[in-house]
Amino acid sequence: MSASEVTHKKIRIALIGATGYAGFEAIRRLLRHPNAEITGLYGPEHELGPIDEFHPLLTGQLSLSQELFDIEKIASSAELAMLCVPHKVAMSYVPALRGAGLRVIDWSADYRLADAAEYERWYCPHTDPDGLAEAVYGLPEFFADGIATASLVANPGCYPTCATLALAPLLSAGLIATDDIVVNAISGVSGAGRTPNRTCHFPDRNENFEPYGVATHRHMPEMEQALTTIAGRPVTLMFVPHLCPMDRGMLCSIYARPTRDGLTAEGLTDVLAAAYRSAPFVRVRTDVLPATKYVAETNFCDIAVRVAKGRVMVFSALDNLTKGASGQAIQNMNIMYGLDETSGLI
Amino acid sequence: MSASEVTHKKIRIALIGATGYAGFEAIRRLLRHPNAEITGLYGPEHELGPIDEFHPLLTGQLSLSQELFDIEKIASSAELAMLCVPHKVAMSYVPALRGAGLRVIDWSADYRLADAAEYERWYCPHTDPDGLAEAVYGLPEFFADGIATASLVANPGCYPTCATLALAPLLSAGLIATDDIVVNAISGVSGAGRTPNRTCHFPDRNENFEPYGVATHRHMPEMEQALTTIAGRPVTLMFVPHLCPMDRGMLCSIYARPTRDGLTAEGLTDVLAAAYRSAPFVRVRTDVLPATKYVAETNFCDIAVRVAKGRVMVFSALDNLTKGASGQAIQNMNIMYGLDETSGLI
Amino acid sequence: MSASEVTHKKIRIALIGATGYAGFEAIRRLLRHPNAEITGLYGPEHELGPIDEFHPLLTGQLSLSQELFDIEKIASSAELAMLCVPHKVAMSYVPALRGAGLRVIDWSADYRLADAAEYERWYCPHTDPDGLAEAVYGLPEFFADGIATASLVANPGCYPTCATLALAPLLSAGLIATDDIVVNAISGVSGAGRTPNRTCHFPDRNENFEPYGVATHRHMPEMEQALTTIAGRPVTLMFVPHLCPMDRGMLCSIYARPTRDGLTAEGLTDVLAAAYRSAPFVRVRTDVLPATKYVAETNFCDIAVRVAKGRVMVFSALDNLTKGASGQAIQNMNIMYGLDETSGLI
Amino acid sequence: MSASEVTHKKIRIALIGATGYAGFEAIRRLLRHPNAEITGLYGPEHELGPIDEFHPLLTGQLSLSQELFDIEKIASSAELAMLCVPHKVAMSYVPALRGAGLRVIDWSADYRLADAAEYERWYCPHTDPDGLAEAVYGLPEFFADGIATASLVANPGCYPTCATLALAPLLSAGLIATDDIVVNAISGVSGAGRTPNRTCHFPDRNENFEPYGVATHRHMPEMEQALTTIAGRPVTLMFVPHLCPMDRGMLCSIYARPTRDGLTAEGLTDVLAAAYRSAPFVRVRTDVLPATKYVAETNFCDIAVRVAKGRVMVFSALDNLTKGASGQAIQNMNIMYGLDETSGLI
Repeated sequence: MSASEVTHKKIRIALIGATGYAGFEAIRRLLRHPNAEITGLYGPEHELGPIDEFHPLLTGQLSLSQELFDIEKIASSAELAMLCVPHKVAMSYVPALRGAGLRVIDWSADYRLADAAEYERWYCPHTDPDGLAEAVYGLPEFFADGIATASLVANPGCYPTCATLALAPLLSAGLIATDDIVVNAISGVSGAGRTPNRTCHFPDRNENFEPYGVATHRHMPEMEQALTTIAGRPVTLMFVPHLCPMDRGMLCSIYARPTRDGLTAEGLTDVLAAAYRSAPFVRVRTDVLPATKYVAETNFCDIAVRVAKGRVMVFSALDNLTKGASGQAIQNMNIMYGLDETSGLI
Repeated sequence: MSASEVTHKKIRIALIGATGYAGFEAIRRLLRHPNAEITGLYGPEHELGPIDEFHPLLTGQLSLSQELFDIEKIASSAELAMLCVPHKVAMSYVPALRGAGLRVIDWSADYRLADAAEYERWYCPHTDPDGLAEAVYGLPEFFADGIATASLVANPGCYPTCATLALAPLLSAGLIATDDIVVNAISGVSGAGRTPNRTCHFPDRNENFEPYGVATHRHMPEMEQALTTIAGRPVTLMFVPHLCPMDRGMLCSIYARPTRDGLTAEGLTDVLAAAYRSAPFVRVRTDVLPATKYVAETNFCDIAVRVAKGRVMVFSALDNLTKGASGQAIQNMNIMYGLDETSGLI
Repeated sequence: MSASEVTHKKIRIALIGATGYAGFEAIRRLLRHPNAEITGLYGPEHELGPIDEFHPLLTGQLSLSQELFDIEKIASSAELAMLCVPHKVAMSYVPALRGAGLRVIDWSADYRLADAAEYERWYCPHTDPDGLAEAVYGLPEFFADGIATASLVANPGCYPTCATLALAPLLSAGLIATDDIVVNAISGVSGAGRTPNRTCHFPDRNENFEPYGVATHRHMPEMEQALTTIAGRPVTLMFVPHLCPMDRGMLCSIYARPTRDGLTAEGLTDVLAAAYRSAPFVRVRTDVLPATKYVAETNFCDIAVRVAKGRVMVFSALDNLTKGASGQAIQNMNIMYGLDETSGLI
Repeated sequence: MSASEVTHKKIRIALIGATGYAGFEAIRRLLRHPNAEITGLYGPEHELGPIDEFHPLLTGQLSLSQELFDIEKIASSAELAMLCVPHKVAMSYVPALRGAGLRVIDWSADYRLADAAEYERWYCPHTDPDGLAEAVYGLPEFFADGIATASLVANPGCYPTCATLALAPLLSAGLIATDDIVVNAISGVSGAGRTPNRTCHFPDRNENFEPYGVATHRHMPEMEQALTTIAGRPVTLMFVPHLCPMDRGMLCSIYARPTRDGLTAEGLTDVLAAAYRSAPFVRVRTDVLPATKYVAETNFCDIAVRVAKGRVMVFSALDNLTKGASGQAIQNMNIMYGLDETSGLI
């Protein structure tokens, strides 16, 4: 136990939208956190009630009920709001929360794309341009300074986290071309949310692997923006996600063109290792290729690189519900409140 | 190829309700049958269209569309109707079909319980008591004679098939008590149908095993009726099904009290083997215990018996979509039309 | 954080046998424990090396190597030994460990059966009868006093934990017969260990559910002993385990005969609830039936009871790797060292 | 039933190596074939015995035992040999079989690479160069003429079938570059064979997705050879397979560079559709993207194409055990013996 854990008082957290998988993971991980306390759960009218009616696993662990969103109550009992609600819903809550003085970590896509027009192109018109202008993209490995003082953090998407961590150092170093990248990705089914549908109905999904959202997935512009920002040059890429019959886990197989001859896996590994020397949750691997089970239920992102036949290949894996959502949100919270970055995340 | 397969002309079949898992399995198996031809698919207004829109696997195999139920058209193009629709819906179609001269195999529960009052107790008021009175319970191992000449066959439920085949010979021989039987059963998720719901949503179902319908499942009275009829004495039992995270497969673990001392697994195995000597789809096993994978995609029901500590234990396994539904329906069809019982079922 | 967590110094733990699933779970959970420190990993000659070669997930979390068992080194660096090795191997290490002054929690079956002759009947001759005589059965809900001062704790089997917690209060209260109990159980595949074999080879196991060890499983005498001890009367039962195609999770469906008329689910639920009033990890449920996913990755055992047709049915579920192994071991450790029983187990 | 099925007599088949998954699938499909008869099963000394000891599903379906390889016996009872044995083993049997006058379909890699030196580079020295020189690559969509008269057919690998069918028409038409292709592929676990190992041990494999054999998989040169032959120009590509936690199914996500501007998905779809106009088992899809469940247990290969951001993407799916092995072998057999190409494959 670090000194900070002992001396810090607990961060009081209002959780908005606790009935889905993201909310569940937020609760489970916050319950383990030594410096966090969930003081209230809030949601829409049709999803109110004891939280263990939605998540029977939580019986005996958290006795709160999800209540109707009430800004007065939230303001008086919390300093931080975590929003685990869908895009569009998030930006309907955020102005009130910030207006009441809370800091906010939003898990939706609403504050990830810096440009309102770009947001509108992929989602819908943006209703909180002021918030958008102030939001910090919550990828701690690259934007920790901004996160530390942010009043509004946009927790990144799972795919963008996985792809950006794999590519950013190589692009920054100018080692791969910025316009010839394919991100072939797979995700466990929890990434598709908890609303029942045929695609995720067990007998239609089990033993079934398929591509979806080819070149049209909304995480593609998010990746491009993050990589462009970090690399300082326009980056465009092709993104093709696939649905894999498992609960959780995400893996990107990335194909890129080297900008010069003679690059080796060893050399590129060194570049990645140097970039993540002080990043506690990125593991640049030389022993094994990334696999979803090696990061399951952890906040790690594993990365490995290979070079062959004139091509650079980067593989990255993370748990879509942890480093891809709840774990990253807590990592951001730790940074925002001056805690050890890994607090509550072992 | 047997002589019968060469000389028989093809049975023209109207399939009612082809968009769910049962309908899919019916189509797949009928396509392989040397003496069957699907001449039309029929369903309710909201589920019309090319069948491969519902089942993309069937593209290039069956070019029919599901059309609105039309008794004229059916009567002119088919001699047999297979109904793969839910209970209550089935009995709304059957009188018209039979009135138009078709023979009918109903996969729902509507004609399984001989007593309309008992049916009402578990389902709803019965609207076709005449049909009910004439329906034959389609368990070929025990009712083949009636099936052969039936105009209306009630295809048994998956659980009742699995439990009845395991228990009937032992009850008939008076070797186990008729009032001290527990049927603990598990089923793959396809048994729950194709309508999306939270119970079968992949991330809520995968890695999740649970009991349901304890002492209240509608297949319990069906089993009791079948066993009572076959044994010639009232049989009552406890039935507890469980949902198992796999696509298909069913296994019953049955616990019974012997009526006399000295019974052995060998002796009981002999009784079962004798009972099923001429049943091509029941395998009484002494080499292995039944397992769902040993019967997957087959029409077999595997049975094994054990005796220990004063208790008789019978294990039976089948594929819920084959011997528990589509395969059994085709086995019944073969018997109704004088074909080899195994035709199209290898 | 409780006061005890702050003031207690860390328990120094030697882990024997860290390369299997049990060892992995021990490490993962101990890493989260505020008052525990793994000081060494020890094993046989053919399984030495950095622990993350065996468990790549642990890279960056634990930098120890598994070393050859060395009692001097262990004695000088640890006060508690956890043995995650197979039966027979465990009792070859325990005398040395205890001789060197360490307290021991053994995860194997070696010290669970109090009678050496009974042990020999199910396993092999016992080589440490002195240890056997002093070992305390580590089911905290019933034997916490003995555990608190024990020098050797036999961590219970997963099935016995699940069945005993479900049955003990009802047997103690004389509400169900002691000689007419069936425990029908299922387990995830991790319970079968990490040694590759055909039974657990993915394509032979996936979509495959089957019974095994019918009336011959070694956990049967363990359950009978635990229940006999707690109830104070001889209890015999039938135990039939099944292998279920999922990683983790265990569920018992138990069938018993009431000793009197008029018992209700409500009444029996009250008896269970009263028995576990102060047990933090047993949840007597009235809202839902137990399901493996409701206890996944937790130390809870969920129990629910039903009565119908003259039969008492009890359902219990736990995570075979947590309450059925690692979590229970840590719960025992907490009791042995005067920590809060739930410490490190949220 | 076509006339050919009625008049043809049955092909007598010796199956070499029936105890693995490939052998199992061969048996299951041949049992359904109207013009095939398995007359003997042969294997190595340590795998002899009734076939249902290895595959309990086959009890009652095939009563043969696997016997020691005996060329006299095989020659007197069969005209066609199917070899379902590993590479290197296959070429130890083939000369004897061909010497005895049998036609051979080899499922291993031994006769797929036309160049013995190339074979040696990826496998081991080739011991049957004469056979190698005469073998025909058994991809019916492109080599049917040679297959029809071949005495030795090399049944293609699963990945090469899936990738070659997707790419060949586009390469032949010069629409995509021959040196800038990435084949990102996934396979169900059955593709890894039946020998137990940690990689395929259920709890290590379930919920685990990972790349393997990056740029080193032996199917890469096989694909390149097939495409080079068909396109008439040297084709090189990058091939990266992944293991997916499901029994069966294979999907290739292929990324290529168009050779000219203005190519559209519609145009490329037309090229593919034209190429496969008379191929009964290739479905060029416009309604859905390929998914493994849409081809499960069928001999279809589904293909769809997309164009975006200057890149051509082709997706193809098949059942690795059917079109990727057993079904393709039977398709080849049908062609070799003048039967309808689809016989026994519905």
